[in-house]
Amino acid sequence: MTNESAQQAGGRSSTDVLKQREFVQIFDTTLRDGLQVEGVSATVEDKLRVAEQLDHLGVSYIEGGWPGANPKDIEFFARAATELTLATATLVAFGSTRRPKGKVDDDPTLHNLIEAGTSAVCIVAKSWDYHVLNALNTTLDEGEAMIADSVEFLVGHGRRVLVDAEHFFDGYKHNQEFAIRALEAAVVKGASHLVLCDTNGGSLPHEVGSIVAEVKAHFRNDVTIAIHCHDDTGCAVANAMAAVASGARQIQGCMNGLGERTGNTNLTTVIPNLELKMGYRCLPPGNLVRLTAVSHHIAEVLNRPMNPQAPYVGTGAFAHKAGLHVSAIVRAKDAYEHIDPVAVGNGTRFIVSEMAGRATINMKAEELGLDMDGAAVGHVIDELKRLEHEGYHFEAADASLELLMRRSAGWTHDYFTVESMRVITDELPSGAFNCEATVKVWVGDERYIDVAEGNGPVNAIDTAMRSVLIRHFPQLTKVHLTDYKVRILDGTSATGATTRVLLEATNGDRSWTTIGVSPNIIEASWQALAESLVFGLLHTPGEPHSSARQ
Amino acid sequence: MTNESAQQAGGRSSTDVLKQREFVQIFDTTLRDGLQVEGVSATVEDKLRVAEQLDHLGVSYIEGGWPGANPKDIEFFARAATELTLATATLVAFGSTRRPKGKVDDDPTLHNLIEAGTSAVCIVAKSWDYHVLNALNTTLDEGEAMIADSVEFLVGHGRRVLVDAEHFFDGYKHNQEFAIRALEAAVVKGASHLVLCDTNGGSLPHEVGSIVAEVKAHFRNDVTIAIHCHDDTGCAVANAMAAVASGARQIQGCMNGLGERTGNTNLTTVIPNLELKMGYRCLPPGNLVRLTAVSHHIAEVLNRPMNPQAPYVGTGAFAHKAGLHVSAIVRAKDAYEHIDPVAVGNGTRFIVSEMAGRATINMKAEELGLDMDGAAVGHVIDELKRLEHEGYHFEAADASLELLMRRSAGWTHDYFTVESMRVITDELPSGAFNCEATVKVWVGDERYIDVAEGNGPVNAIDTAMRSVLIRHFPQLTKVHLTDYKVRILDGTSATGATTRVLLEATNGDRSWTTIGVSPNIIEASWQALAESLVFGLLHTPGEPHSSARQ
Repeated sequence: MTNESAQQAGGRSSTDVLKQREFVQIFDTTLRDGLQVEGVSATVEDKLRVAEQLDHLGVSYIEGGWPGANPKDIEFFARAATELTLATATLVAFGSTRRPKGKVDDDPTLHNLIEAGTSAVCIVAKSWDYHVLNALNTTLDEGEAMIADSVEFLVGHGRRVLVDAEHFFDGYKHNQEFAIRALEAAVVKGASHLVLCDTNGGSLPHEVGSIVAEVKAHFRNDVTIAIHCHDDTGCAVANAMAAVASGARQIQGCMNGLGERTGNTNLTTVIPNLELKMGYRCLPPGNLVRLTAVSHHIAEVLNRPMNPQAPYVGTGAFAHKAGLHVSAIVRAKDAYEHIDPVAVGNGTRFIVSEMAGRATINMKAEELGLDMDGAAVGHVIDELKRLEHEGYHFEAADASLELLMRRSAGWTHDYFTVESMRVITDELPSGAFNCEATVKVWVGDERYIDVAEGNGPVNAIDTAMRSVLIRHFPQLTKVHLTDYKVRILDGTSATGATTRVLLEATNGDRSWTTIGVSPNIIEASWQALAESLVFGLLHTPGEPHSSARQ
Repeated sequence: MTNESAQQAGGRSSTDVLKQREFVQIFDTTLRDGLQVEGVSATVEDKLRVAEQLDHLGVSYIEGGWPGANPKDIEFFARAATELTLATATLVAFGSTRRPKGKVDDDPTLHNLIEAGTSAVCIVAKSWDYHVLNALNTTLDEGEAMIADSVEFLVGHGRRVLVDAEHFFDGYKHNQEFAIRALEAAVVKGASHLVLCDTNGGSLPHEVGSIVAEVKAHFRNDVTIAIHCHDDTGCAVANAMAAVASGARQIQGCMNGLGERTGNTNLTTVIPNLELKMGYRCLPPGNLVRLTAVSHHIAEVLNRPMNPQAPYVGTGAFAHKAGLHVSAIVRAKDAYEHIDPVAVGNGTRFIVSEMAGRATINMKAEELGLDMDGAAVGHVIDELKRLEHEGYHFEAADASLELLMRRSAGWTHDYFTVESMRVITDELPSGAFNCEATVKVWVGDERYIDVAEGNGPVNAIDTAMRSVLIRHFPQLTKVHLTDYKVRILDGTSATGATTRVLLEATNGDRSWTTIGVSPNIIEASWQALAESLVFGLLHTPGEPHSSARQ
């Protein structure tokens, strides 16, 4: 079976829909609604970097924040105006309609929206009668007037105005007449988009599909319908696609499914669904391959670990574990993967674990360019079983796996040998802590003793080791640790339990992870650190200066 | 607005579907397909505990493993037969059809299935012609015979047989005639269920809905149609619901969305969708309230952190952050939450962070039973802003937040004062590491000096502190640490970066989390440990024995 025939097999109706290639705008709200997720906070600098990434991906709109509600957001729009050059995206400031019984001219929210200086603005408007009557404590007529006045004011200031109809689906189910009246008020005054929000996130695809179709039939082509979902039923992506099938032409959502509670519509999922499976266009041609890199980059900027299970962009999205399938997958990837992972900038990965068969280890050896005979492969499998039983987990530690495989193939490193080490941690009279490590190390025939301070025991050992090794291996200046993760393996007896340490390092060109396991956290850390240094020396170009001290 | 009226508002078509209350079987494959997820491995003991939880929830089927493919799984079925008493669930052994050109009587897989001793078995069968021809390397006629023979054999041994049609949707799109022929072979020989699998996970709801409807029309009531999806398009839940709407009456999936690549259909999402929103019944009446507890319990047994964003069961599923909404939510929860969280055993939560307003802090004070005046609330808000700027994160550390609020209200603890501490870590001649902590502590007017070993610096300090404190506060014997998490806050300069430590502890009745932040990991750990001890002393019953040493 060729790639082409499998693609056809996998997408029965793809030929009909591909003919359309209609455009669906992507409106990213990672920097506004996305930051409502628990546990994420972003500096203005972070937000500027995320905006650059979103533009690099090629979304149509970037909602940057709510100027006024958050002091950082005023600064964001000021800096964005001078520092960002966006190729594709339009920056949007978010706000709300004017206050009940207030006037547009002296409304602080509307004032801040204008001050933000964006060509487009998005304002939240109440379309569920209950919220107008009980949250705003005003009449339905005043609720309608708040929308009409605010849109008129903003359009009068030359802004493109998107109206975000909060709680729209619940409101429509409860009082359809008022929900439509709220939308009409916006359209009459020149809103460009009606954003139908499932604010509480409780809707299902069949409801969203039928209500959007009714709204679309009502407004025809007077306005663009946008859909804004939350994932409280696990259906945000399906809801957004149902809306598009019913005539919506803008999807609002967040990268990596960020957002309050269960998250907004995950753009990293819905974009490839629309482009690869539904026959729509969302990004500039050729940009879809940037999806995985942009997704990971944003996760890093926001200091939020990627979900390995994330569709399309997760490290596990095209990972194959079951040993017996590996050889079949290699023969015909398109019969085992729903899309070519390269289309979204991801790749096929074979996971090595205690369940690995010989085929998996052979694949991995080929990937690493190692020449391994049958005995060496058998040794790797035995070692994996033994070590994973002790608590090691090589799926997460690519560099330690590679070193294990190299050792099984007969390789040993001769970069250094540690004779002993000691770390003293003291509380100083100031109340601060001090850590000091002493290491005794052999490099070739030379014995070194060195001491270093650090901000913790592991850092102190790392610093002391480097001060020795760097004399022989100057390329180590390029290598540094980027993350340090500790897990207690037996949660029920934490203080006496086994500790697993994962260390991430980089040399600027590539990153790697090593693992250490021990009841003693320092020993586990040192195992991971030693492997990290060895891996760094093995893979960082630079002639070993073994005679540097001679 | 009453709860009732909001429920009606939120579910337009609920009254029509509620009349039906048809039953949809839940087939849980957490213990088979779920364990294919990267990074999870389970002991036989773990699997038995998960099975108990699934039965407690009330699923119809529990797929326990593939006896023979994995040696642990033979042991699991043997122990399950004697050790498990299941109230609701039927245990299922998984396997495959006989080998190509083989005979059923001497087929090891079928033999192992019978040996497993379960009343029901599920066998994987190939329904995509490509896989028969190229993966099995046999003819379509033989592919069909493999299914027919195997079902006949297993039914002949008195088993209920579910046939798992692998790659069914891709196969159906590619060669509909053979896909149906494969299913017919199973039905003719007495299979109870046809499990339609979207093995590569690439299908969308409209495709699944229409194909399941065609299959249902073909087989009518001769057999039960089951749906087995993977989340590669972020639509597994929506796909399963589309299948149910088209006549499927069994959903296969995993708790917490475990499973290979992007995970199987998330049962913790689809069950409440079906019961609360679609008018189906999946569990014994009254059992849905167990969902959150079972979900968290299974996550813990499999040592896999819960996704806080998980619909219905996540800690963030009903968490409200935006300060200005808190008071409105309190007045009318049903206007801000898509279901009553109590229905699934979860609860509303108000998140306190630097964005918190006075209303949020007041809510939290009430929750904690603290009497705080306006000045104290203002102080908490200022402290939160200052500390979160330094890297603290109180959303994740409930106990540290409570202590901060108590201090702002004027409270101070007088349990102990630390004069100084020192930890020495040494590599022993054996290569193992030794940690030894010395602490000098005041309790009241008494000064103590004590020393203790530990499996790491923090454990050594913890042990030394306890050996002092326990003389005065014997209730500390109930308190122990359960997890220790370390994060480097500035990932780009790991060795010199700020470290955030989260410590979890329990006294058997309740658990709590404290936080420490410092450039020095030992100092951060000590902050978190000190707060953990104080919180434990504050909330663990036991008369302080302040004169224990007198």
